[in-house]
Formats: sequence, structure tokens, C-alpha cells
Amino acid sequence: MVKWLDREGIDEDVVVSSRVRLARNIRDEKFPQRMSLNESQVVTEKILNAMEKSNLPEKYNFKRIEDLSSLERRAYVEEHLISPGLIEVPDKSSFFLREDEAVTIMINEEDHLRMQVLFPGLYLEEGWKLCSEIDDFLEKNIDYAYSEKFGYLTSCPTNVGTGMRISCMVHLPCLVLTGYIDSLISALNQIGLTVRGIYGEGSQILGNLFQISNQTTLGETEEEIVQKLKSVILEVIEKERNLRLKLLETQKIDMEDRVFRALGLLKYSRVITSSETMKLFSDIKMGIEMGIIKDIKLKDIDQLMILCQPSSLQRYYGKDMIPEERDIKRAELIRERF
Amino acid sequence: MVKWLDREGIDEDVVVSSRVRLARNIRDEKFPQRMSLNESQVVTEKILNAMEKSNLPEKYNFKRIEDLSSLERRAYVEEHLISPGLIEVPDKSSFFLREDEAVTIMINEEDHLRMQVLFPGLYLEEGWKLCSEIDDFLEKNIDYAYSEKFGYLTSCPTNVGTGMRISCMVHLPCLVLTGYIDSLISALNQIGLTVRGIYGEGSQILGNLFQISNQTTLGETEEEIVQKLKSVILEVIEKERNLRLKLLETQKIDMEDRVFRALGLLKYSRVITSSETMKLFSDIKMGIEMGIIKDIKLKDIDQLMILCQPSSLQRYYGKDMIPEERDIKRAELIRERF
Repeated sequence: MVKWLDREGIDEDVVVSSRVRLARNIRDEKFPQRMSLNESQVVTEKILNAMEKSNLPEKYNFKRIEDLSSLERRAYVEEHLISPGLIEVPDKSSFFLREDEAVTIMINEEDHLRMQVLFPGLYLEEGWKLCSEIDDFLEKNIDYAYSEKFGYLTSCPTNVGTGMRISCMVHLPCLVLTGYIDSLISALNQIGLTVRGIYGEGSQILGNLFQISNQTTLGETEEEIVQKLKSVILEVIEKERNLRLKLLETQKIDMEDRVFRALGLLKYSRVITSSETMKLFSDIKMGIEMGIIKDIKLKDIDQLMILCQPSSLQRYYGKDMIPEERDIKRAELIRERF
Repeated sequence: MVKWLDREGIDEDVVVSSRVRLARNIRDEKFPQRMSLNESQVVTEKILNAMEKSNLPEKYNFKRIEDLSSLERRAYVEEHLISPGLIEVPDKSSFFLREDEAVTIMINEEDHLRMQVLFPGLYLEEGWKLCSEIDDFLEKNIDYAYSEKFGYLTSCPTNVGTGMRISCMVHLPCLVLTGYIDSLISALNQIGLTVRGIYGEGSQILGNLFQISNQTTLGETEEEIVQKLKSVILEVIEKERNLRLKLLETQKIDMEDRVFRALGLLKYSRVITSSETMKLFSDIKMGIEMGIIKDIKLKDIDQLMILCQPSSLQRYYGKDMIPEERDIKRAELIRERF
């Protein structure tokens, strides 16, 4: 079970989750791409000390990437708890994970420090507040690389300034079905927002799930960035909800057919790929969101969508599997759950 | 319910049904295509009289095509009880149907008389014997058009001689799946057999169901025609059965996946076309034939395959429906039955 998903969120019929991330670096230390193993250990020690002294209110567990099996590493990525970049140089990187999985503090990813707050539903203002508090705690014991002129300095210039990236993962089946999604994406791009697949930069769009995030980190305050994205997300929610009502009004039987066929396939298939699973789960989610399916919880589908990813699935069954075996076990797991 | 299907047959895992048909004409009467309405009535009267005098052992019901609604006419065709040709000139044609639906005697189709025996499973020798008995009964009271040189004379030269056409409807999912069906069809053509869809000449192949019949009616005795087709059908049965075993051995999970997905779709869809239904029912039949599905009877699927045809479906619901409405009602009916 994915712990962070296991709490109630706002507007969850469209917004699966919200994420706030702050990038920070330690003054006078080389950026991770340029540092030696020794230098990376110095940075890790500094952050470990700061965490200890900071006395954060909740319990955090510390994990070094090199201590995790490659299956565990990838499963953490699939659960959105760490970034794909963090596991690329395993002997240098590590992370703190808050007991409830809502906060991750990554060490030596692209920057020395990347703090992430992850909550179900629409949670941008609250997420920013929480992330900012953690940042304040740490800042007491870490000398951040900061310039009066540019703000927080980061390894990649696109993060300089606030070092903040915030995003919402939204489920937009009806915007996709009606074809409005394309014009929405270009409109969002024009106002400085990025739209990507659920596993970030370059990842495929799966299950009609889109990650909408801010592109710029410079020239706006954190509050402005949060307010801007929030107001856009509220508009997207309204657009998607209106289309759902409209489709339910004008194409009820076709929508029901689509949703129930997905249910039939998930309940009966014996071999199923990850990408077909995402497509069918999206139809089920749409069915729940539209009130066509009443006896399945949205949350359970969100959990399953992660559990059915290749590495999470293998971790669940406790063994490495070739893709063909995974497709069989995935179908088995889904039949058990329904 | 389709009555004729409702008895046990031999080799039903491959052979859905067997049909024997004899074409006969009355001496000195014009062939149906050339006769006036009056002349057609004379022919009909002669046959009605002969049927009365012949005193056939079982009960027969007489139906004039013009007395049937167009829905009923097409439903009889879908049930394979009469030929599509019989309803083309409705004011001239009629038929006798034996109470158990195993025998039809069609009047003024392409020939004055067409007797048909229809049984589930492999039933060629017995079918020919039964059809021949009925023919003998009628011949006592009808002067058939017969030439010593050519045999029975028929409207179309391809039927001259024995006037006999026999066929088996066979379900060959694994021959189709493995691609061997094409070479089988050309081999059958080369030895003088025809392979067509389930609704005869020019009809589409639906649900992996093929009708294999004799092409020639001249130069061979009825017994030779029956023995030749029977031995070919036995070979086809063996080929299909061997492939089923082989696929079950080498691709078990994929076959199960295919079969259960079909079941899932049939149990859950809300809108379904006639041709998708045939495809999915074929998968279900294959599942039963291979032992993958154990709690559904082959016979029930054969019944449903007919009941789901457009006219039978409309007759079942007692009303004319546009195709979109039929697709919804078809899905409803299937859900009820499963």
C-alpha cells in the first residue's frame, strides 16, 4: 500500500495529487554532478547533522540508495516518493522519508537538497506552507547557497530563484475523449506552465493522467507561483467536470459501455500489460468520477495504478520477473483485488 | 429458442450442424423464376395435395411467406430454417416446417420443391436417409421432372442430377488463429467442395463458422457425395482438435486470456454490434471446446448466436429497432443470459 495516498484530499475527482518541491544547495560545496565520492559524503554528513539538530516534529527514516535493491529503488520512483534522477548515481545519493510518506528530503540528486511534499488532492497552498516550514528548520543549520540578486542558487539555471517547482497530477479523461486536451495544453504552455506524463520530464502520458507544473522559478514570489497554478487547476477542474456532465447527458450509454467494458476486461483478463492497465484503470476512474460505478473507491484504483507498475509489482511478489511473467501476475493481482 | 438445435449431436465440439437439401421440380410446370402468380398457385396447390396424401409420419405446419411479417421472415432465415431466396418473391413462396424444426419443405424458391433436413452435430448419412424418405413419400403423389440421362432437372444447372446439396457448419477457431484455414480452403476447393459463411453464398465469415458443402451434383451417387463430404469433415475435425491441443499446450495462458476477455466483455458491455458478438461468442465456444470454460454449455452459445442476429433479436423484443437500439438491447440480453 502506498501510504501517502491514504488520506482524504480535496477535489480528488480530478486532482489525484499535489506536489511542492524546493531545491537548495550548500554554500561553497560543488554541485552533485561535479563532486567526487568523498565530497558527496561531506555534503551528506552536513545534511544528516542538520536534520538531527533541526529536530523536525515528525519521524523521518534515512535511506541510502546503495543500500536498496534495484527493485526497491525503482518502486520508490513509481510511488513518486523519489525522483528518477536520485537513483542514477546510487553511491552518492540518499533520502529522508517522513513516516507518513508525505515528505521526502533527497540528498545529492541534481542539487544537494530537494525537499518534496506530496499529498492527495488539491493541496498547493498547504503543501507550500509545509515545505517552507521544513526549509526554515533546515536553514537554521545549513548555510544555503543564496544570492541577493538571483535568490537560491541551483545546479540547473531553470531552478534558480525560488528553487520551487509545484505540480498537480490531474485525471482528464473527458478532455482527452473530446479532443479539447490539445488546445488546453498549448494554452497552459503559453502562460508558462508545463504539462507532462506522470513520471515527469519525457515520460509518456498514461491513463489520461497529466502533471501540470510551473516552468519559471525566477521573477515571481512563491505565493504568486502557488496562486497562479492553483487558479489554473481550478479552471481545469471545472472544464473537466463540465465535460463529464455533458457526456453523461448526451452519450450516457456509450460512456457506460466504455466504463463497464474496462471493468469486464480487468476482472477477466489473464495477461495484461502495464500500459493497457493504465488505460483501463483510467476508464474505471472516469466511471467512478461520473457516478457510473458506485461500489469501487477512487483511492483503491489510484493505489492499484501504482502497484501495477513493473517494479512495484515485482516487489509485491518478492521477485524479479520477465515482462511476460509480470503481465500474468499483474492480471492475477487485479482479479484478486476486484 | 431455436428448436432444431435443441437435441444432442455427434462431434459438436467442431460441427455445429449438418444439412441435407434436395431440389425437385414438377414435370411440365415452369420454373419459379418464369412463372406467373397463377402458375405459382397451381404448383403450391399440387404440393399441398401431395403433402396431404403422403401422410408423413410427423406433424408439419404450413406457412405462406406473405402471411409473415418481414421480421418473422428474416428471423426464419437467421435460424437457418428457410433460405434467403425463399423470401425474395413473397407472394409466390411458402414452406412446411416439421414441428421439431428438423425438416423444412420450401415451395417455389429457385425450384418448386426444396426439402431440407437440419440437425445439430455431424449427421450427414442419417440426414440423407431422412431426406430421401420424405422425397419418396412425396414422389408417390408428385410427377417429378426427371430425365434418364441427366437425373432430376433443376432451375439452375449446378443442381441437375441428384439435386442434392449437403453441408456442415463447422467452428474452426484454431485453424483461423494459426492461419492454416487458407490452405485448407483451397485444398477443399480443389476436391470439389465449397467453403462459405454461415448464411450461404456470398455471406461473410462470422464467428469462425464455415459452411463446407459439395459443389457437384452430377456424376456421383448421393451415397458417394455423402461419404466424400463425411470423410473430409472427419479430417477437418481432427485437424482442428489437434491444433486445439497444441495451442493449449504451447500457449495456454494466451488462450485463457483470449477466452476470459471475451467473457468479460460479453458480461459487461452495454452496447454491442452483431459482428462483435459473433467474434466474442466464437472465443467463448473455443473456451468451452478446449475445456477452459466449464460452466457454460456449447448449446446455449449456439442458441445465443442465432438469437443475437438482428431480426431474431427484434422478434424477441417484439418490435422494430434501429441498429443503435439493437446494439443496446443485444448487450442487455447477453448480460441477462450470462
